[in-house]
Amino acid sequence: MARQRRIILCGDLVWAHDEVEQLFHGVAVVVNMDSPNRADFLMGLKPGGKYDGAVGIYRHNASADRIGVFDKEIITALAATGTVKWIAHNGAGYDQIDIEECAKRGSHPSFTLPFFLSLHLYTTTHAYYPRMYKIGISVSNTPGAVDDATATTALYLLISCLRHFSLAERSLRTGTWKTPISSGRTHDLTSRTLGILGLGGIGLRLANLVHAFPMRVVYYSRHRVRNAPEWCEYVGSMEALLKQSDVLSVHVPLRADTIHLVGEKEIRTMKRGSVIINTARGKIIDEEALIRALEDGHISSVGLDVYPDEPNVNPRLLAFPQNALLPHMGTETQDSQREMEIRALLNLRDFLLEGRGKDLVPEMRR
Amino acid sequence: MARQRRIILCGDLVWAHDEVEQLFHGVAVVVNMDSPNRADFLMGLKPGGKYDGAVGIYRHNASADRIGVFDKEIITALAATGTVKWIAHNGAGYDQIDIEECAKRGSHPSFTLPFFLSLHLYTTTHAYYPRMYKIGISVSNTPGAVDDATATTALYLLISCLRHFSLAERSLRTGTWKTPISSGRTHDLTSRTLGILGLGGIGLRLANLVHAFPMRVVYYSRHRVRNAPEWCEYVGSMEALLKQSDVLSVHVPLRADTIHLVGEKEIRTMKRGSVIINTARGKIIDEEALIRALEDGHISSVGLDVYPDEPNVNPRLLAFPQNALLPHMGTETQDSQREMEIRALLNLRDFLLEGRGKDLVPEMRR
Repeated sequence: MARQRRIILCGDLVWAHDEVEQLFHGVAVVVNMDSPNRADFLMGLKPGGKYDGAVGIYRHNASADRIGVFDKEIITALAATGTVKWIAHNGAGYDQIDIEECAKRGSHPSFTLPFFLSLHLYTTTHAYYPRMYKIGISVSNTPGAVDDATATTALYLLISCLRHFSLAERSLRTGTWKTPISSGRTHDLTSRTLGILGLGGIGLRLANLVHAFPMRVVYYSRHRVRNAPEWCEYVGSMEALLKQSDVLSVHVPLRADTIHLVGEKEIRTMKRGSVIINTARGKIIDEEALIRALEDGHISSVGLDVYPDEPNVNPRLLAFPQNALLPHMGTETQDSQREMEIRALLNLRDFLLEGRGKDLVPEMRR
Repeated sequence: MARQRRIILCGDLVWAHDEVEQLFHGVAVVVNMDSPNRADFLMGLKPGGKYDGAVGIYRHNASADRIGVFDKEIITALAATGTVKWIAHNGAGYDQIDIEECAKRGSHPSFTLPFFLSLHLYTTTHAYYPRMYKIGISVSNTPGAVDDATATTALYLLISCLRHFSLAERSLRTGTWKTPISSGRTHDLTSRTLGILGLGGIGLRLANLVHAFPMRVVYYSRHRVRNAPEWCEYVGSMEALLKQSDVLSVHVPLRADTIHLVGEKEIRTMKRGSVIINTARGKIIDEEALIRALEDGHISSVGLDVYPDEPNVNPRLLAFPQNALLPHMGTETQDSQREMEIRALLNLRDFLLEGRGKDLVPEMRR
């Protein structure tokens, strides 16, 4: 008897379980990952285990609380099943998944997926997506779906830092009404220059939001973005970006080459009194260098939604009352979560039905 | 010997004193109101007092900390000088000035201003501005200059309420990282309906800022606004506005007929779970009705920059952690304060040089 084809839901969903079942009706059985820890999860993947027959994984970062990130050990176990071929990650950032391991693990699909993929599907797949044969486990993310919510978060932090609103709210709630910090140190957004580091979907969305004021918008990416509006100026170098910006907003993904992309030298290249916003990943900024710049006033305030060692927050960041600090809520809205979920689940469903899914992470694209 | 013509600066300025002196060079002597209390101020206005010869007043709400608001007593004293003919208020809202008293106090300018206004000026004034003869003391405000900063404040409160960011920031700073409130209760701005009550300069500016998302924007004012963009829909009645809005933002001035304009009935007309933003004046909303609606969940959160009894804040408002509460900082930025100051001072200077100034409050316009 053929094993049951299963998809495993790892982490939170706004959707109800029966909604997901309906989506995968006739395609796969939907199983919740209910393991309290990693050992239980790894055991479940083994033949006869509760996750046996898994052909795809829906993954949300919340699953890390119980089974940890998808590191080499977990990827090895998923590859060892011989059946798991797609991880549909819910989120734009997928640094909690070891992409390199996914790419090299696994073997030719004809040996690993015979019980559920027809020869017809193999042919289709091969025609549509030859690289699949080189990738052990494909990984998709949910770009686009996160743009609006994350850019809104960056806008909020930007307003808060320029106007000292976070500080003011805390002052009011502790019974002090206004703080001694005078309006002489706060600024309108209008006419100031926002520097966007990494003009992907989120950066472009933020550019459009602040253009309403308008702020002047400059950006630097590895390449000039062809569909960027003309008022969104490509400055050609990281140095030019840093020199021109009153506020720097970080929107690059976390990769080996973006760790500490904003370091001591970069921070000191900015104008004195500048503001830095980060809604991407904490490790992209050298936190020690950032704190030194806050201490000597080179940076006037930072608005952060992300930290190098979440959920831990460096207590020295809290020492600056003008900083606006959120607990990684960039995409946390009912609307965006549903949109991200449906996108991740559809990527998985497309793969199961058509042998390929959308939103393959850039490293796995041809 | 003719008395020295003086203008009295009542309240804070970002501008340096010599900058103001330069602006009024050859027009009037600039005197800082340094009275520690009302009695001293009233004394100074008397013949031979330190403010004797005052022809105009620059007024900022901060002066209320020492001499109180410009109520009947102060207006009477200003009128009694026979020389004060213009109060240039720094701010959009001028509810701290008794406009009715200003309008009826004072007498025909020919009796009160002979020592500094030439006959030529009288003629000019009369031609340009006949109503001046009926108004004892003219009052100007600074519309326009406050629009950007105040609308930005409303946008910040709006984002905070829909996303629960204020709550999240406090949670992080108290060491809790995320709060138990799930993303299932928070929302994107995009596609939601913002109802603007009072489409003046600030309301229109906010409409333009949220149009970038876009939110759907509906408004109600006493009259349809002719220069409103077509996507900004006039709904014709207060009731229609309340029924259609996910978020209501208040932008009407405080007058006798706008006190509790948003009361029990209006709040209950809104959809359950709606959000209310107020950056106008606290008394426009019936605070008791608002708190009841927060208690039973009819209103999910409020974003307030203004309160009925500032600087006192009703402690019951603090009981709702999702509320975003700012200590009346709508226009508090270096940029906006300078813009408002220059506008107020130029209104005063125009009056002294040409017999009329701009930005006369609506009640005093023909």
